[in-house]
Amino acid sequence: MVRPPKSKAGASNQLQPAMVLVRPQLGENIGKTARAMLNFGLTDMRLVVPRDGWPNPAAGPAASGADIVLQNARIFDTVEDAVADCTLVFATTVRNRDMPKPTVTPRSASMQMQQKISLSERPAILFGPERSGLTNDDVACADTVLTVPVNAAFGSLNLAQAVILIAYEFSIQNDDTPSFQPAYPDGQADKAQVQGLINHLVGELEQTGFFRSEDRRTNQKRSIANLIHSAGLSQQEVQTWRGIVKALTR
Amino acid sequence: MVRPPKSKAGASNQLQPAMVLVRPQLGENIGKTARAMLNFGLTDMRLVVPRDGWPNPAAGPAASGADIVLQNARIFDTVEDAVADCTLVFATTVRNRDMPKPTVTPRSASMQMQQKISLSERPAILFGPERSGLTNDDVACADTVLTVPVNAAFGSLNLAQAVILIAYEFSIQNDDTPSFQPAYPDGQADKAQVQGLINHLVGELEQTGFFRSEDRRTNQKRSIANLIHSAGLSQQEVQTWRGIVKALTR
Repeated sequence: MVRPPKSKAGASNQLQPAMVLVRPQLGENIGKTARAMLNFGLTDMRLVVPRDGWPNPAAGPAASGADIVLQNARIFDTVEDAVADCTLVFATTVRNRDMPKPTVTPRSASMQMQQKISLSERPAILFGPERSGLTNDDVACADTVLTVPVNAAFGSLNLAQAVILIAYEFSIQNDDTPSFQPAYPDGQADKAQVQGLINHLVGELEQTGFFRSEDRRTNQKRSIANLIHSAGLSQQEVQTWRGIVKALTR
Repeated sequence: MVRPPKSKAGASNQLQPAMVLVRPQLGENIGKTARAMLNFGLTDMRLVVPRDGWPNPAAGPAASGADIVLQNARIFDTVEDAVADCTLVFATTVRNRDMPKPTVTPRSASMQMQQKISLSERPAILFGPERSGLTNDDVACADTVLTVPVNAAFGSLNLAQAVILIAYEFSIQNDDTPSFQPAYPDGQADKAQVQGLINHLVGELEQTGFFRSEDRRTNQKRSIANLIHSAGLSQQEVQTWRGIVKALTR
Protein backbone atom coordinates (compact mmCIF):
# COMPACT_ATOMS: atom_id res chain seq x y z
CA MET A 1 0.00 0.00 0.00
CA VAL A 2 1.33 3.43 -0.91
CA ARG A 3 1.40 5.85 1.97
CA PRO A 4 1.98 9.56 1.55
CA PRO A 5 5.30 10.85 2.86
CA LYS A 6 5.10 13.77 5.26
CA SER A 7 5.93 16.25 2.49
CA LYS A 8 3.33 16.24 -0.21
CA ALA A 9 3.06 17.58 -3.72
CA GLY A 10 2.66 21.31 -3.60
CA ALA A 11 3.73 21.58 0.01
CA SER A 12 6.43 24.03 -1.00
CA ASN A 13 5.86 26.22 2.03
CA GLN A 14 6.93 23.39 4.28
CA LEU A 15 10.61 23.50 5.13
CA GLN A 16 12.46 21.06 2.93
CA PRO A 17 15.91 20.80 1.37
CA ALA A 18 16.61 23.07 -1.57
CA MET A 19 17.82 21.07 -4.55
CA VAL A 20 20.33 23.34 -6.28
CA LEU A 21 21.28 22.46 -9.85
CA VAL A 22 24.52 24.27 -10.60
CA ARG A 23 24.93 25.18 -14.29
CA PRO A 24 22.69 22.34 -15.51
CA GLN A 25 23.10 21.65 -19.21
CA LEU A 26 20.06 19.92 -20.70
CA GLY A 27 16.50 21.08 -20.11
CA GLU A 28 15.47 17.44 -20.34
CA ASN A 29 17.59 16.64 -17.31
CA ILE A 30 16.08 19.53 -15.37
CA GLY A 31 12.64 18.10 -16.17
CA LYS A 32 13.66 14.61 -15.09
CA THR A 33 15.08 16.04 -11.91
CA ALA A 34 11.78 17.80 -11.18
CA ARG A 35 9.99 14.48 -11.59
CA ALA A 36 12.48 12.71 -9.32
CA MET A 37 12.04 15.41 -6.66
CA LEU A 38 8.25 15.39 -6.70
CA ASN A 39 8.18 11.60 -6.46
CA PHE A 40 9.43 12.13 -2.93
CA GLY A 41 7.57 15.33 -2.16
CA LEU A 42 10.37 17.83 -2.82
CA THR A 43 9.48 21.02 -4.66
CA ASP A 44 12.22 23.57 -3.91
CA MET A 45 14.31 23.55 -7.10
CA ARG A 46 16.95 26.23 -7.61
CA LEU A 47 18.90 26.70 -10.81
CA VAL A 48 22.26 28.44 -10.97
CA VAL A 49 22.91 29.78 -14.48
CA PRO A 50 21.25 27.00 -16.50
CA ARG A 51 23.26 26.71 -19.72
CA ASP A 52 20.33 27.07 -22.11
CA GLY A 53 18.45 29.75 -20.19
CA TRP A 54 15.12 29.48 -18.43
CA PRO A 55 12.36 28.53 -18.98
CA ASN A 56 13.56 25.69 -21.19
CA PRO A 57 10.98 24.05 -23.48
CA ALA A 58 12.66 20.64 -23.11
CA ALA A 59 12.08 20.56 -19.35
CA GLY A 60 8.29 20.28 -19.27
CA PRO A 61 7.81 17.05 -21.24
CA ALA A 62 10.61 15.35 -19.30
CA ALA A 63 8.99 16.28 -16.00
CA SER A 64 6.06 13.93 -16.74
CA GLY A 65 3.61 16.02 -14.79
CA ALA A 66 5.90 17.51 -12.15
CA ASP A 67 5.20 20.96 -13.58
CA ILE A 68 4.75 22.56 -10.18
CA VAL A 69 8.43 22.04 -9.49
CA LEU A 70 9.48 23.69 -12.74
CA GLN A 71 7.01 26.56 -12.30
CA ASN A 72 8.37 27.30 -8.85
CA ALA A 73 12.04 26.89 -9.80
CA ARG A 74 14.12 29.93 -9.01
CA ILE A 75 17.14 31.19 -10.94
CA PHE A 76 20.32 32.46 -9.33
CA ASP A 77 23.54 33.95 -10.64
CA THR A 78 25.83 32.27 -8.15
CA VAL A 79 25.89 29.28 -5.82
CA GLU A 80 26.31 31.68 -2.91
CA ASP A 81 23.05 33.45 -3.81
CA ALA A 82 21.23 30.16 -4.28
CA VAL A 83 22.00 28.97 -0.75
CA ALA A 84 21.83 32.33 1.00
CA ASP A 85 18.82 31.30 3.16
CA CYS A 86 20.28 27.88 4.02
CA THR A 87 22.31 26.84 7.05
CA LEU A 88 23.72 23.49 5.94
CA VAL A 89 24.91 22.85 2.40
CA PHE A 90 25.97 19.53 0.91
CA ALA A 91 28.01 19.21 -2.28
CA THR A 92 27.41 16.01 -4.23
CA THR A 93 30.56 14.59 -5.78
CA VAL A 94 31.65 11.26 -7.09
CA ARG A 95 35.36 11.88 -7.02
CA ASN A 96 37.43 12.24 -3.91
CA ARG A 97 38.37 15.90 -3.90
CA ASP A 98 40.82 15.60 -1.05
CA MET A 99 39.21 18.69 0.38
CA PRO A 100 39.08 19.64 4.04
CA LYS A 101 35.42 18.74 4.39
CA PRO A 102 33.78 15.73 5.91
CA THR A 103 32.10 13.28 3.54
CA VAL A 104 28.79 11.63 4.33
CA THR A 105 26.47 9.04 2.83
CA PRO A 106 22.95 9.95 1.63
CA ARG A 107 21.51 8.41 4.77
CA SER A 108 23.75 10.39 7.09
CA ALA A 109 23.08 13.59 5.13
CA SER A 110 19.35 12.93 5.34
CA MET A 111 19.49 12.61 9.10
CA GLN A 112 21.43 15.87 9.34
CA MET A 113 18.91 17.59 7.05
CA GLN A 114 15.97 16.39 9.13
CA GLN A 115 17.71 17.72 12.25
CA LYS A 116 18.14 21.12 10.61
CA ILE A 117 14.51 21.17 9.54
CA SER A 118 13.41 20.31 13.07
CA LEU A 119 15.30 23.47 14.12
CA SER A 120 13.40 25.44 11.41
CA GLU A 121 16.57 25.77 9.36
CA ARG A 122 16.85 25.01 5.66
CA PRO A 123 19.42 22.62 4.21
CA ALA A 124 20.49 22.58 0.56
CA ILE A 125 22.18 20.12 -1.77
CA LEU A 126 24.34 21.16 -4.70
CA PHE A 127 24.37 19.07 -7.88
CA GLY A 128 26.91 19.86 -10.58
CA PRO A 129 26.61 20.07 -14.36
CA GLU A 130 25.95 16.73 -16.05
CA ARG A 131 29.31 16.41 -17.74
CA SER A 132 31.80 17.82 -15.31
CA GLY A 133 30.22 17.91 -11.86
CA LEU A 134 30.79 20.65 -9.30
CA THR A 135 34.01 22.65 -9.45
CA ASN A 136 36.26 22.94 -6.42
CA ASP A 137 34.96 26.49 -6.00
CA ASP A 138 31.38 25.21 -5.91
CA VAL A 139 32.35 22.61 -3.34
CA ALA A 140 34.05 25.27 -1.26
CA CYS A 141 30.59 26.85 -0.69
CA ALA A 142 29.37 23.70 1.03
CA ASP A 143 29.76 22.43 4.57
CA THR A 144 29.96 18.77 3.73
CA VAL A 145 30.53 16.49 0.77
CA LEU A 146 27.75 14.02 -0.01
CA THR A 147 28.78 10.93 -1.97
CA VAL A 148 26.48 8.11 -3.06
CA PRO A 149 28.36 4.83 -2.53
CA VAL A 150 28.15 3.54 -6.09
CA ASN A 151 30.00 0.61 -7.60
CA ALA A 152 33.61 1.79 -7.78
CA ALA A 153 34.04 -0.07 -11.07
CA PHE A 154 30.98 1.57 -12.66
CA GLY A 155 29.79 4.79 -11.10
CA SER A 156 27.59 6.36 -13.73
CA LEU A 157 24.81 8.22 -11.95
CA ASN A 158 23.06 10.80 -14.04
CA LEU A 159 21.66 13.99 -12.53
CA ALA A 160 18.10 12.75 -12.00
CA GLN A 161 19.33 9.46 -10.55
CA ALA A 162 21.55 11.21 -8.04
CA VAL A 163 18.63 13.45 -7.11
CA ILE A 164 16.13 10.63 -6.76
CA LEU A 165 18.39 8.58 -4.48
CA ILE A 166 18.91 11.53 -2.16
CA ALA A 167 15.25 12.60 -2.31
CA TYR A 168 14.25 9.04 -1.48
CA GLU A 169 16.61 8.83 1.49
CA PHE A 170 15.41 12.20 2.77
CA SER A 171 11.78 11.22 2.36
CA ILE A 172 11.99 7.89 4.15
CA GLN A 173 13.68 9.44 7.19
CA ASN A 174 10.31 10.87 8.03
CA ASP A 175 8.06 8.33 6.37
CA ASP A 176 5.78 6.24 8.51
CA THR A 177 5.11 3.43 6.03
CA PRO A 178 5.48 0.24 8.07
CA SER A 179 8.45 -1.78 6.82
CA PHE A 180 6.19 -4.84 6.79
CA GLN A 181 2.46 -4.84 6.25
CA PRO A 182 0.81 -8.21 6.67
CA ALA A 183 -1.20 -9.73 3.91
CA TYR A 184 -4.77 -10.81 4.46
CA PRO A 185 -7.11 -7.89 4.38
CA ASP A 186 -9.61 -10.44 5.76
CA GLY A 187 -7.40 -11.03 8.80
CA GLN A 188 -4.91 -13.67 9.81
CA ALA A 189 -6.53 -16.92 10.96
CA ASP A 190 -6.42 -17.43 14.70
CA LYS A 191 -5.03 -20.65 16.12
CA ALA A 192 -8.50 -22.15 16.70
CA GLN A 193 -9.20 -21.84 12.97
CA VAL A 194 -5.79 -23.27 12.09
CA GLN A 195 -6.29 -26.14 14.54
CA GLY A 196 -9.69 -26.77 12.99
CA LEU A 197 -8.04 -27.22 9.61
CA ILE A 198 -5.38 -29.54 11.09
CA ASN A 199 -8.02 -31.66 12.82
CA HIS A 200 -10.08 -31.81 9.65
CA LEU A 201 -7.08 -32.91 7.57
CA VAL A 202 -5.77 -35.43 10.12
CA GLY A 203 -9.27 -36.86 10.56
CA GLU A 204 -9.64 -37.43 6.84
CA LEU A 205 -6.14 -38.91 6.61
CA GLU A 206 -7.04 -41.35 9.41
CA GLN A 207 -9.85 -42.65 7.18
CA THR A 208 -7.51 -43.20 4.23
CA GLY A 209 -4.92 -45.20 6.14
CA PHE A 210 -2.28 -42.48 5.62
CA PHE A 211 -0.89 -43.19 9.10
CA ARG A 212 0.27 -46.72 8.41
CA SER A 213 2.15 -47.54 11.57
CA GLU A 214 1.45 -46.57 15.14
CA ASP A 215 5.21 -45.79 15.40
CA ARG A 216 5.21 -43.07 12.83
CA ARG A 217 1.75 -41.67 13.50
CA THR A 218 2.93 -39.23 16.21
CA ASN A 219 5.74 -37.83 14.08
CA GLN A 220 3.56 -37.58 11.01
CA LYS A 221 0.89 -35.68 12.91
CA ARG A 222 3.49 -33.35 14.31
CA SER A 223 4.86 -32.70 10.82
CA ILE A 224 1.39 -31.80 9.60
CA ALA A 225 0.84 -29.46 12.53
CA ASN A 226 4.21 -27.76 11.90
CA LEU A 227 3.45 -27.45 8.19
CA ILE A 228 0.11 -25.77 8.73
CA HIS A 229 0.84 -23.64 11.78
CA SER A 230 3.87 -22.08 10.12
CA ALA A 231 2.11 -21.33 6.83
CA GLY A 232 0.70 -18.08 8.20
CA LEU A 233 -2.76 -18.66 6.73
CA SER A 234 -5.47 -16.04 6.57
CA GLN A 235 -9.05 -16.81 7.56
CA GLN A 236 -9.92 -17.00 3.88
CA GLU A 237 -7.03 -19.34 3.18
CA VAL A 238 -8.10 -21.70 5.98
CA GLN A 239 -11.53 -21.88 4.35
CA THR A 240 -9.93 -22.49 0.94
CA TRP A 241 -7.82 -25.35 2.33
CA ARG A 242 -10.83 -26.91 4.07
CA GLY A 243 -12.68 -26.78 0.77
CA ILE A 244 -9.73 -28.49 -0.92
CA VAL A 245 -9.60 -31.26 1.70
CA LYS A 246 -13.33 -31.75 1.38
CA ALA A 247 -13.14 -31.96 -2.42
CA LEU A 248 -10.26 -34.44 -2.34
CA THR A 249 -12.18 -36.78 -0.01
CA ARG A 250 -15.40 -36.77 -1.97
CA MET B 1 35.38 8.99 -1.18
CA VAL B 2 33.77 6.29 -3.27
CA ARG B 3 34.10 2.83 -1.83
CA PRO B 4 33.32 -0.33 -3.76
CA PRO B 5 30.24 -2.22 -2.62
CA LYS B 6 30.77 -5.89 -1.95
CA SER B 7 29.35 -6.83 -5.35
CA LYS B 8 31.43 -5.45 -8.16
CA ALA B 9 31.02 -5.01 -11.87
CA GLY B 10 31.23 -8.37 -13.53
CA ALA B 11 30.83 -10.30 -10.32
CA SER B 12 27.88 -12.13 -11.80
CA ASN B 13 28.88 -15.43 -10.26
CA GLN B 14 28.35 -14.00 -6.82
CA LEU B 15 24.86 -14.63 -5.49
CA GLN B 16 22.77 -11.53 -5.96
CA PRO B 17 19.13 -10.72 -6.62
CA ALA B 18 17.83 -11.43 -10.11
CA MET B 19 16.20 -8.34 -11.59
CA VAL B 20 13.34 -9.67 -13.68
CA LEU B 21 11.82 -7.30 -16.25
CA VAL B 22 8.43 -8.70 -17.16
CA ARG B 23 7.34 -7.86 -20.73
CA PRO B 24 9.45 -4.67 -20.87
CA GLN B 25 8.42 -2.38 -23.71
CA LEU B 26 11.24 -0.03 -24.75
CA GLY B 27 14.80 -1.17 -25.39
CA GLU B 28 15.93 2.21 -24.10
CA ASN B 29 14.39 1.44 -20.72
CA ILE B 30 16.09 -1.94 -20.62
CA GLY B 31 19.40 -0.17 -21.24
CA LYS B 32 18.74 2.41 -18.54
CA THR B 33 17.84 -0.38 -16.16
CA ALA B 34 21.14 -2.14 -16.92
CA ARG B 35 22.96 1.07 -16.06
CA ALA B 36 20.98 1.49 -12.83
CA MET B 37 21.76 -2.11 -11.83
CA LEU B 38 25.48 -1.91 -12.50
CA ASN B 39 25.74 1.35 -10.58
CA PHE B 40 25.11 -0.78 -7.53
CA GLY B 41 26.94 -3.90 -8.65
CA LEU B 42 23.97 -5.94 -9.88
CA THR B 43 24.40 -7.90 -13.12
CA ASP B 44 21.71 -10.61 -13.15
CA MET B 45 19.10 -9.22 -15.55
CA ARG B 46 16.32 -11.48 -16.76
CA LEU B 47 13.82 -10.53 -19.44
CA VAL B 48 10.41 -12.15 -19.77
CA VAL B 49 9.12 -11.75 -23.35
CA PRO B 50 10.51 -8.28 -24.12
CA ARG B 51 7.98 -6.65 -26.43
CA ASP B 52 10.42 -5.74 -29.20
CA GLY B 53 12.49 -8.93 -29.08
CA TRP B 54 16.08 -9.33 -28.00
CA PRO B 55 18.74 -8.10 -28.53
CA ASN B 56 17.31 -4.64 -28.95
CA PRO B 57 19.52 -2.01 -30.63
CA ALA B 58 18.07 0.78 -28.46
CA ALA B 59 19.30 -0.86 -25.25
CA GLY B 60 23.06 -0.47 -25.71
CA PRO B 61 23.32 3.30 -26.04
CA ALA B 62 20.98 3.81 -23.07
CA ALA B 63 23.12 1.53 -20.91
CA SER B 64 25.95 4.10 -20.98
CA GLY B 65 28.62 1.44 -20.66
CA ALA B 66 26.76 -1.20 -18.64
CA ASP B 67 27.06 -3.57 -21.59
CA ILE B 68 28.03 -6.53 -19.44
CA VAL B 69 24.54 -6.53 -17.95
CA LEU B 70 22.88 -6.56 -21.36
CA GLN B 71 25.26 -9.20 -22.72
CA ASN B 72 24.49 -11.51 -19.81
CA ALA B 73 20.75 -10.85 -19.83
CA ARG B 74 18.70 -14.02 -20.19
CA ILE B 75 15.34 -14.36 -21.90
CA PHE B 76 12.44 -16.38 -20.53
CA ASP B 77 8.98 -17.25 -21.80
CA THR B 78 7.24 -17.00 -18.44
CA VAL B 79 7.71 -15.40 -15.06
CA GLU B 80 7.70 -18.89 -13.52
CA ASP B 81 10.67 -19.90 -15.68
CA ALA B 82 12.52 -16.69 -14.92
CA VAL B 83 12.41 -17.27 -11.16
CA ALA B 84 12.75 -21.06 -11.19
CA ASP B 85 16.12 -21.00 -9.35
CA CYS B 86 14.99 -18.41 -6.78
CA THR B 87 13.56 -18.95 -3.30
CA LEU B 88 12.12 -15.53 -2.52
CA VAL B 89 10.36 -13.40 -5.11
CA PHE B 90 9.20 -9.82 -4.71
CA ALA B 91 6.66 -8.17 -6.99
CA THR B 92 7.03 -4.40 -7.33
CA THR B 93 3.72 -2.58 -7.50
CA VAL B 94 2.56 0.94 -6.93
CA ARG B 95 -1.11 0.21 -6.54
CA ASN B 96 -2.64 -1.62 -3.63
CA ARG B 97 -3.69 -4.95 -5.12
CA ASP B 98 -5.59 -6.07 -2.07
CA MET B 99 -3.87 -9.41 -2.51
CA PRO B 100 -3.17 -11.92 0.24
CA LYS B 101 0.54 -11.11 0.33
CA PRO B 102 2.55 -9.07 2.74
CA THR B 103 3.88 -5.73 1.50
CA VAL B 104 7.35 -4.48 2.38
CA THR B 105 9.47 -1.39 1.85
CA PRO B 106 12.67 -1.49 -0.23
CA ARG B 107 14.72 -1.51 2.98
CA SER B 108 12.83 -4.41 4.49
CA ALA B 109 13.03 -6.33 1.19
CA SER B 110 16.75 -5.68 1.04
CA MET B 111 17.28 -7.11 4.50
CA GLN B 112 15.28 -10.21 3.55
CA MET B 113 17.29 -10.57 0.34
CA GLN B 114 20.59 -10.34 2.18
CA GLN B 115 19.37 -13.01 4.59
CA LYS B 116 18.52 -15.32 1.68
CA ILE B 117 21.91 -14.72 0.09
CA SER B 118 23.63 -15.52 3.37
CA LEU B 119 21.83 -18.88 3.18
CA SER B 120 23.14 -19.31 -0.41
CA GLU B 121 19.65 -18.79 -1.81
CA ARG B 122 18.78 -16.45 -4.64
CA PRO B 123 16.08 -13.78 -4.37
CA ALA B 124 14.40 -12.13 -7.35
CA ILE B 125 12.45 -8.96 -7.96
CA LEU B 126 9.76 -8.63 -10.63
CA PHE B 127 9.26 -5.33 -12.44
CA GLY B 128 6.26 -4.90 -14.72
CA PRO B 129 5.88 -3.35 -18.16
CA GLU B 130 6.38 0.41 -18.23
CA ARG B 131 2.78 1.33 -18.98
CA SER B 132 0.70 -1.15 -17.07
CA GLY B 133 2.85 -2.74 -14.38
CA LEU B 134 2.62 -6.36 -13.30
CA THR B 135 -0.66 -8.22 -13.77
CA ASN B 136 -2.34 -9.95 -10.87
CA ASP B 137 -1.15 -13.25 -12.35
CA ASP B 138 2.45 -12.00 -12.31
CA VAL B 139 2.05 -10.90 -8.70
CA ALA B 140 0.62 -14.30 -7.82
CA CYS B 141 4.07 -15.80 -8.64
CA ALA B 142 5.69 -13.72 -5.91
CA ASP B 143 5.99 -14.23 -2.17
CA THR B 144 5.79 -10.60 -1.21
CA VAL B 145 4.82 -7.25 -2.65
CA LEU B 146 7.52 -4.56 -2.68
CA THR B 147 6.29 -0.97 -2.79
CA VAL B 148 8.47 2.13 -2.86
CA PRO B 149 6.85 4.72 -0.57
CA VAL B 150 6.50 7.50 -3.14
CA ASN B 151 4.54 10.71 -2.78
CA ALA B 152 0.91 9.58 -2.85
CA ALA B 153 0.00 12.73 -4.78
CA PHE B 154 2.67 12.15 -7.45
CA GLY B 155 3.97 8.63 -7.80
CA SER B 156 5.63 8.54 -11.19
CA LEU B 157 8.59 6.18 -10.95
CA ASN B 158 9.83 4.90 -14.25
CA LEU B 159 11.34 1.44 -14.64
CA ALA B 160 15.00 2.44 -14.23
CA GLN B 161 14.16 4.67 -11.24
CA ALA B 162 12.35 1.85 -9.46
CA VAL B 163 15.28 -0.43 -10.19
CA ILE B 164 17.92 2.03 -9.01
CA LEU B 165 16.17 2.71 -5.71
CA ILE B 166 15.94 -0.99 -4.94
CA ALA B 167 19.46 -1.73 -6.20
CA TYR B 168 20.75 1.10 -4.01
CA GLU B 169 18.96 -0.18 -0.93
CA PHE B 170 20.20 -3.70 -1.55
CA SER B 171 23.75 -2.49 -2.08
CA ILE B 172 24.00 -0.36 1.03
CA GLN B 173 22.78 -3.19 3.26
CA ASN B 174 26.18 -4.70 2.74
CA ASP B 175 28.21 -1.60 2.08
CA ASP B 176 30.91 -0.63 4.51
CA THR B 177 31.26 3.02 3.53
CA PRO B 178 31.39 4.91 6.83
CA SER B 179 28.34 7.15 7.18
CA PHE B 180 30.69 9.97 8.15
CA GLN B 181 34.27 10.38 7.02
CA PRO B 182 36.13 13.23 8.66
CA ALA B 183 37.70 15.92 6.58
CA TYR B 184 41.36 16.73 6.90
CA PRO B 185 43.53 14.28 5.07
CA ASP B 186 46.33 16.04 6.98
CA GLY B 187 44.74 15.13 10.29
CA GLN B 188 42.61 16.95 12.80
CA ALA B 189 44.55 19.37 14.97
CA ASP B 190 45.14 18.16 18.49
CA LYS B 191 44.20 20.32 21.44
CA ALA B 192 47.78 21.53 21.97
CA GLN B 193 47.79 22.96 18.45
CA VAL B 194 44.35 24.52 18.94
CA GLN B 195 45.42 25.97 22.28
CA GLY B 196 48.55 27.35 20.60
CA LEU B 197 46.33 29.24 18.15
CA ILE B 198 44.09 30.52 20.96
CA ASN B 199 47.11 31.74 22.94
CA HIS B 200 48.57 33.40 19.86
CA LEU B 201 45.30 35.19 19.08
CA VAL B 202 44.60 36.22 22.67
CA GLY B 203 48.19 37.42 23.07
CA GLU B 204 47.91 39.63 20.01
CA LEU B 205 44.50 40.92 21.11
CA GLU B 206 45.99 41.86 24.49
CA GLN B 207 48.43 44.11 22.62
CA THR B 208 45.64 45.87 20.72
CA GLY B 209 43.52 46.70 23.77
CA PHE B 210 40.69 44.39 22.57
CA PHE B 211 39.99 43.39 26.17
CA ARG B 212 38.93 46.82 27.40
CA SER B 213 37.66 46.05 30.86
CA GLU B 214 38.91 43.58 33.43
CA ASP B 215 35.23 42.62 33.98
CA ARG B 216 34.64 41.37 30.50
CA ARG B 217 38.09 39.94 29.84
CA THR B 218 37.29 36.52 31.31
CA ASN B 219 34.07 36.15 29.32
CA GLN B 220 35.67 37.40 26.14
CA LYS B 221 38.54 34.95 26.45
CA ARG B 222 36.12 32.13 27.10
CA SER B 223 34.14 33.09 24.00
CA ILE B 224 37.27 32.97 21.89
CA ALA B 225 38.22 29.57 23.31
CA ASN B 226 34.72 28.21 22.61
CA LEU B 227 34.79 29.64 19.09
CA ILE B 228 38.07 28.04 18.19
CA HIS B 229 37.81 24.74 20.05
CA SER B 230 34.46 23.96 18.43
CA ALA B 231 35.57 24.86 14.91
CA GLY B 232 37.03 21.39 14.39
CA LEU B 233 40.19 22.71 12.73
CA SER B 234 42.71 20.56 10.92
CA GLN B 235 46.44 20.92 11.48
CA GLN B 236 46.67 22.79 8.20
CA GLU B 237 43.82 25.10 9.16
CA VAL B 238 45.48 25.96 12.47
CA GLN B 239 48.57 26.99 10.50
CA THR B 240 46.43 29.02 8.10
CA TRP B 241 44.75 30.88 10.98
CA ARG B 242 48.08 31.56 12.65
CA GLY B 243 49.32 33.02 9.38
CA ILE B 244 46.20 35.20 9.20
CA VAL B 245 46.66 36.47 12.76
CA LYS B 246 50.31 37.19 12.02
CA ALA B 247 49.46 39.09 8.83
CA LEU B 248 46.76 41.16 10.56
CA THR B 249 49.16 42.24 13.29
CA ARG B 250 51.98 43.23 10.99
